[in-house]
Amino acid sequence: MISSNAHIQQPTAAMLVIGDEILSGRTQDTNTQFIACKLTEAGIRLVEVRIVSDSHDEIVLAVNRLRSKYNYVFTSGGIGPTHDDITADAIADAFGVGINVREDAKRILSSNYSDGDKALNEARLRMARIPDEAILIENPVSKAPGFALDNVYVMAGVPEIFKVMVDSIIPLLTGGPPLLAISVKFFKPESEIAKRLEYIASNFSGGTIGSYPFSYQGVHGTNVVARHFDEESLKDIEAKLKELS
Amino acid sequence: MISSNAHIQQPTAAMLVIGDEILSGRTQDTNTQFIACKLTEAGIRLVEVRIVSDSHDEIVLAVNRLRSKYNYVFTSGGIGPTHDDITADAIADAFGVGINVREDAKRILSSNYSDGDKALNEARLRMARIPDEAILIENPVSKAPGFALDNVYVMAGVPEIFKVMVDSIIPLLTGGPPLLAISVKFFKPESEIAKRLEYIASNFSGGTIGSYPFSYQGVHGTNVVARHFDEESLKDIEAKLKELS
Repeated sequence: MISSNAHIQQPTAAMLVIGDEILSGRTQDTNTQFIACKLTEAGIRLVEVRIVSDSHDEIVLAVNRLRSKYNYVFTSGGIGPTHDDITADAIADAFGVGINVREDAKRILSSNYSDGDKALNEARLRMARIPDEAILIENPVSKAPGFALDNVYVMAGVPEIFKVMVDSIIPLLTGGPPLLAISVKFFKPESEIAKRLEYIASNFSGGTIGSYPFSYQGVHGTNVVARHFDEESLKDIEAKLKELS
Repeated sequence: MISSNAHIQQPTAAMLVIGDEILSGRTQDTNTQFIACKLTEAGIRLVEVRIVSDSHDEIVLAVNRLRSKYNYVFTSGGIGPTHDDITADAIADAFGVGINVREDAKRILSSNYSDGDKALNEARLRMARIPDEAILIENPVSKAPGFALDNVYVMAGVPEIFKVMVDSIIPLLTGGPPLLAISVKFFKPESEIAKRLEYIASNFSGGTIGSYPFSYQGVHGTNVVARHFDEESLKDIEAKLKELS
């Protein structure tokens, strides 16, 4: 648990993963962990993640809930050229704005083909449909852009493309102080250090301590992770934690 | 998109992942994909996933929202012996029931140690705190049980333990007809098959077609996954899809 004092120092964010393929178990989502690490580094607190299906209504509902609750919302999935790519339309609906083929997006797409505009069949043009007022997010991998509308950043689901899009928007976001972390490994089960850990945690003002059990080659151990905005406080707590081992 | 007809044939489910370590990016969640596959096999439709932090209020809010909306809710994380394991208390609060050390859970835990009850220090006893009326979920790996309360199944976050808990509850759930799937691989980008794919999808009554781009050694290809309850319909659509390649 992060103290309420620490909370207010960082902007908040939510991630919305869109895709039946995640919910059916066919695909392992890795985009969440990628952006989670980037946001942690940038001093933005990822507070909630939701995964919803390729359903217009579910996307609209989730986007509107999350964008009113958090400073930033990031989405992945559903912006390709096929019939099941419905994210752009859902985002336009969520904001109550129009959506049309945009000239700037079209130019970017046609630059990908030697025969320019002529290569833009109906499916490819679908990827140039951008909600009104949105700002494009670059896609150096396959050109088809993502977009940002107000505090919502809409990106591709393909991890390779999602990553470059995230890398391009992170510098544009306003982060708070980064939450620093140290980690101490114990070759003891959680239950043997829990009581003293609780005591240390309850006296760790402005920071948090998490305890994560692991099993490795028959050994039950515990990783303890302490987080704080202040490096000195972290060094103090690291010393205290090491006394437990 | 699954037709509304197909929807009503299957019970619905949500997964709630609890843990700061997922939101900070430190840990990759794999429990969602594991249960997603198991639910798909069992004929239960996973409709939504949420990941929330180790925050009492956020857990209560999410559990109450999800359990009223879906037939089943599964949670992972936060039922260990340390101060940051707050899931059991949050679930009790969400249901408005009491929570106490339960004799049945205590017996299971003490059976793990050669000196029985004496080994149950305060931290270990914490894992015997179970909301009133809940049914225990077995944990053959490290004994500390999960529990089920009404339609909410509360399980451990450690993947090894989560898996055996899921395996033990799946046979107890009421599934609908399993949604069958076939997959056809195209060594063409999505935009080249999108139009004909849309035509096939729009005539695929009661089923869904998803299109998933991939890049492998410089080749941009597309995996197309069709899902339907009826095997014959799937065979028909598979033949139609293969004509596209």
